[in-house]
Amino acid sequence: MNRLALALLAAAGLATALPAAAQFQKPEDAIKYRQSAFTVMASHFGRVAAMAQGKVPFDAAAAKANADIVATMSRLPFAAFPAGTDSGQTKAKAEIWSEPDKFRQGATTMQEAVGRLQAAANAGNLDQIKAAVGDVGKSCKACHDSYRKD
Amino acid sequence: MNRLALALLAAAGLATALPAAAQFQKPEDAIKYRQSAFTVMASHFGRVAAMAQGKVPFDAAAAKANADIVATMSRLPFAAFPAGTDSGQTKAKAEIWSEPDKFRQGATTMQEAVGRLQAAANAGNLDQIKAAVGDVGKSCKACHDSYRKD
Repeated sequence: MNRLALALLAAAGLATALPAAAQFQKPEDAIKYRQSAFTVMASHFGRVAAMAQGKVPFDAAAAKANADIVATMSRLPFAAFPAGTDSGQTKAKAEIWSEPDKFRQGATTMQEAVGRLQAAANAGNLDQIKAAVGDVGKSCKACHDSYRKD
Repeated sequence: MNRLALALLAAAGLATALPAAAQFQKPEDAIKYRQSAFTVMASHFGRVAAMAQGKVPFDAAAAKANADIVATMSRLPFAAFPAGTDSGQTKAKAEIWSEPDKFRQGATTMQEAVGRLQAAANAGNLDQIKAAVGDVGKSCKACHDSYRKD
């Protein structure tokens, strides 16, 4: 990511949500990185969701550990959508770059829902976990519907 | 990962190093997950390493943020090497499963070096960061030489 893109991100307020500004040598590095972060996030979210849905027994310690990882991962991918990473091995739609404010709002909505999931899991409250899992799932789907090709 | 594999992992003491036991429906899910975790880890390690090598200016806050992510990621991939995930889109060598104790020792060596990196970054000590980056790099290379196909 070049300095201009970073500055634009910072101006949009997005950089403040990122623990580390992204640095990618090539567009495909950014694409691979963001896909990887989403993959890890989805895997650990799936483990909490399975508990929320009664598919596996509720294990408070495992729910907390997984939700903590989801929270860490939720902050990573959005630094990896610099301009010029809309082609190649990616399902990213052009709308990510043509409506950046809306895309950023979608990311924030997801991160806030994940924050509620993490709080619920830290409290060991299964009812709150169920509600937050629903919200996180909706926020994933909303962005996928708008910004990811089938 | 089935329960037997989990039990074997637990017996080997590996599960204790993992915040969440892995659950993968298909072998390719485990392969994709572990590759993703390594990709994210490598990206953030590279950002700290670049500071250690003087390629980018030292930024204590960024070093800490990146080292924290490296530490989180370092604990994830090793739950995703269950039996039956040695073929397909993977460079994993058969030795991972034929010498599990040695493979586990390699993982532990890496995780310990990452722990030193995290401590150094949290202390904001560039000299200690440089030493730890060297140790982490060596531990990555050692496992790649032994357990990853070219």
